[in-house]
Amino acid sequence: MLSLRLTSFTHLLSPPSSAAIARRSRAILRRRHHLRQRPLAASFSAQSATAETQDRVNNSKNRVPEQVITPRSQDFNAWYLDVIANAELADYGPVRGTMVIRPYGYAIWEAIQEYLNVKFKETGHSNMYFPQFIPYSFIEKEASHVEGFSPELALVTIGGGKELEEKLVVRPTSETIVNHMFTQWIHSYRDLPLLINQWANVTRWEMRTKPFVRTLEFLWQEGHTAHATPEEAEDEAIQMIDIYTRFAYEQAAIPVITGRKSKVETFAGACKTYTIEAMMGDKKALQAGTSHNLGQNFSRAFGTQFTDENGVREHIWQTSWAISTRFVGGIIMTHGDDAGLMLPPKIAPIQVVIVPIWKKDDEKAAVLNAALTVKDVLQKSGIRVKLDDSDQRTPGWKFNFWEMKGVPLRIEIGPRDVASGSVVISRRDIPGKQGKVFGISMEPSNLEAYVKDKLDEIQSSLLERAIAFRDSNIVDVSTYSDLKAAISEGKWARGPWSASDEDELKVKEETGATIRCFPFEQPQGIKTCLMTGNPAEEVAIFAKSY
Amino acid sequence: MLSLRLTSFTHLLSPPSSAAIARRSRAILRRRHHLRQRPLAASFSAQSATAETQDRVNNSKNRVPEQVITPRSQDFNAWYLDVIANAELADYGPVRGTMVIRPYGYAIWEAIQEYLNVKFKETGHSNMYFPQFIPYSFIEKEASHVEGFSPELALVTIGGGKELEEKLVVRPTSETIVNHMFTQWIHSYRDLPLLINQWANVTRWEMRTKPFVRTLEFLWQEGHTAHATPEEAEDEAIQMIDIYTRFAYEQAAIPVITGRKSKVETFAGACKTYTIEAMMGDKKALQAGTSHNLGQNFSRAFGTQFTDENGVREHIWQTSWAISTRFVGGIIMTHGDDAGLMLPPKIAPIQVVIVPIWKKDDEKAAVLNAALTVKDVLQKSGIRVKLDDSDQRTPGWKFNFWEMKGVPLRIEIGPRDVASGSVVISRRDIPGKQGKVFGISMEPSNLEAYVKDKLDEIQSSLLERAIAFRDSNIVDVSTYSDLKAAISEGKWARGPWSASDEDELKVKEETGATIRCFPFEQPQGIKTCLMTGNPAEEVAIFAKSY
Repeated sequence: MLSLRLTSFTHLLSPPSSAAIARRSRAILRRRHHLRQRPLAASFSAQSATAETQDRVNNSKNRVPEQVITPRSQDFNAWYLDVIANAELADYGPVRGTMVIRPYGYAIWEAIQEYLNVKFKETGHSNMYFPQFIPYSFIEKEASHVEGFSPELALVTIGGGKELEEKLVVRPTSETIVNHMFTQWIHSYRDLPLLINQWANVTRWEMRTKPFVRTLEFLWQEGHTAHATPEEAEDEAIQMIDIYTRFAYEQAAIPVITGRKSKVETFAGACKTYTIEAMMGDKKALQAGTSHNLGQNFSRAFGTQFTDENGVREHIWQTSWAISTRFVGGIIMTHGDDAGLMLPPKIAPIQVVIVPIWKKDDEKAAVLNAALTVKDVLQKSGIRVKLDDSDQRTPGWKFNFWEMKGVPLRIEIGPRDVASGSVVISRRDIPGKQGKVFGISMEPSNLEAYVKDKLDEIQSSLLERAIAFRDSNIVDVSTYSDLKAAISEGKWARGPWSASDEDELKVKEETGATIRCFPFEQPQGIKTCLMTGNPAEEVAIFAKSY
Repeated sequence: MLSLRLTSFTHLLSPPSSAAIARRSRAILRRRHHLRQRPLAASFSAQSATAETQDRVNNSKNRVPEQVITPRSQDFNAWYLDVIANAELADYGPVRGTMVIRPYGYAIWEAIQEYLNVKFKETGHSNMYFPQFIPYSFIEKEASHVEGFSPELALVTIGGGKELEEKLVVRPTSETIVNHMFTQWIHSYRDLPLLINQWANVTRWEMRTKPFVRTLEFLWQEGHTAHATPEEAEDEAIQMIDIYTRFAYEQAAIPVITGRKSKVETFAGACKTYTIEAMMGDKKALQAGTSHNLGQNFSRAFGTQFTDENGVREHIWQTSWAISTRFVGGIIMTHGDDAGLMLPPKIAPIQVVIVPIWKKDDEKAAVLNAALTVKDVLQKSGIRVKLDDSDQRTPGWKFNFWEMKGVPLRIEIGPRDVASGSVVISRRDIPGKQGKVFGISMEPSNLEAYVKDKLDEIQSSLLERAIAFRDSNIVDVSTYSDLKAAISEGKWARGPWSASDEDELKVKEETGATIRCFPFEQPQGIKTCLMTGNPAEEVAIFAKSY
């Protein structure tokens, strides 16, 4: 029984044993099997290992890791789940729809946190923590909020062995409890603006789940701010979506399209929702971060008022904004390829892997010694580097393994390199010989500069490639039939839109696509609504989405 | 109604308005009122403001901040709650027993996190994240674990509008779900040791709550490790309690006593529990961190096995260890005094506050200019510094306010200081003129060195003072009547112990004290059990505790 369980786990940076690879391929098959029949099965039973699985297991010892990953072009969803399993990013929790974030996946989340946490503080926000249990009555106070969230709530009804008088909501988001506290803290204009953020877990009882992208519980940051004027709230909402946009482009190399949501797609309780929309490798859109101008919706519901400079009582103006572990899914689905994960250097837990190569025992010491020196040099200059000196695996196996894990650069050191005082460097983003450069001098200042330069190049190159992919898959449309054609080809459609909510819902029903946003960047010139032929002020982007 | 609500909130570093101070004193009284009648009231109603409260409110405008804090010697608990409210460390959540951690309190928690997170990684642990919902059946698998935790569970019974088939436990701790996953990840000795940690919220349905010390939901880190041998697990448990001990001494200036829990006090599911026990200002003990050697208790319950080097299947050996937001309560209750909070420099969110002093308008520019220069100098050298340049408050008011917030050092700059190119520096830990030094040169390298030196001195001095306090309040006892006498004086009793669990429970019943630990540091010589007169191998420490 036990030997049929899931993939091996040693340490964030250790390659698994061959038995682990065998188990992994089994596990992947079993998972896929489960996913097709009942998504995110609550438990994995040995019975689900079919005869076909057993065959694959028996054959898998000789395989290199990438062979257990379904080709991306063949089945994008299967590829995605295979990458998550093989690169040890996450695993399924015992409760349907929950996810265990494993060290390598969590390290990507930590990189996201580190960057954003600094930006939030630089822009005057303080971290704090609100309780996750919210009285049910709070959720009911804001009409559209309760409508949006009540189908997704997890409710605590028993505490300390007793039925509770009022059931408690496990936070799906914190606007209500935040407003309850703001009402106690805010009195006069001198108390504003109030700018806070929390890093927390949230729970939404989703029926169709997918690791990172949509899970029953996920991790996020949620910013909440209170202002004296609607202009300040609007500026804040824009400032934060700008920070998310810069993060996406500069750190994650994801060329999101930033814009405003349609009324239909606006957050439950917001006046305006700004969003960053990313195009995944299958051309579906991923909403990767949102910033809401909440207006006075929550302050009116909760009576959150302040005395302005003229002594008049006014309701505060608010924003909220969030990025979640979903972003990790966005990184996987933007950059990954058939070989597995491909990580932008700035957020890669390991930026450089060193693979020492020796055949004879008398070569080993010199090679390992040189590898260690190179590791030290790079580590000291702030590069996140891993030396894979295990002797249980061949260099070829290691190459494939670390490519599958998405490490941006690989340094190879063999006896001839030691003799010539140089190394071989391979880029993850350029496969085969084209991405390989021989004879880079080991001399510390040279090597450090070369590696940093290459990491920058890879970072830019991933972004450029993603921009090209995005732009080649957005079609400008001027009629509904153009739109339908573009969507049916799996592309994004961009066209002028001033039609009704009903028309928007009709598009969704007939094509499966929704308005992802009215992008901030708008084409010049006169626009005519693709649906009605009426004048339109803006183009909208339509796409199928996660 | 609204004007009777709780204390003002502007920003982590801004002093509140006079109205806020007035509201604060009201709020504190009302809270205390609530706390005595029903701890941590679910909501604060205007009705609870008594006539006495109203009087105090009316008088409070002329008061300086420390006067609204109950003297520590008069009522330690009231003092503690006053400090938390006045220093804006935390507030009550809407659900009984929950706490909102406010920015200033959260910043202390972040300082704890930053230190420990580095130490955990240095010792080979990786962060990850487990779901917080645990199937109820998991909790039942380990017999003593279910006995220990089932009275305190919060249960989710409804998800997405439907009654769940199996109720879900909101994690009180994660040993069960961790073992469920370990069983899938661990196969052979090559997968060991497995060393992980998570930063998370946990829920325990406590009946008697107190901010930071015991709340229904709290934040913590929980480490979980798996090993191939009992010796390795024991070494790990000891290594982690050592890290906690060093943190307590070196960062928090809390001279904890480290030792082993008695069987009665051992964690539900552990073989051995190691603990750091801190003496609070009222001489009660606070268990400030624990590290458990879990043996094979959970691996047997969950069937977590590995194949050893000889091909034999064995159950893994485990540890778990945790420090929580309770530690913030420990810092408050160790160092605080009648003037409020007193923070050790290493974990103080603000290490130095600069208070500029001017009377005439023509002095203001020069003073502020000098203050800004000093701020820049200190900030650049990595010191956490705040310039309080508001002109709504007098310097005297500011002195009291920042003392109440526990800022270790204050720099005063007036016109005469500007003229002489010097500043006045006051220590938070030495009240009045004794802690004040005049004529410290503003010259950058001199000032930076002086301030760093003083911060180190304060850090050491807080620790020394706490050690002296601790040692003068531990009584060596050799008989049960000695023990009773020491406990009735509010002290800790240390004496040889080899008596039964029943005797231990008898001591608890008769004196209110429990065995806090068998300290690692043991006196030499022959020992005789204080209760039975039988030979004893160790002394135990008895105390009343939080």
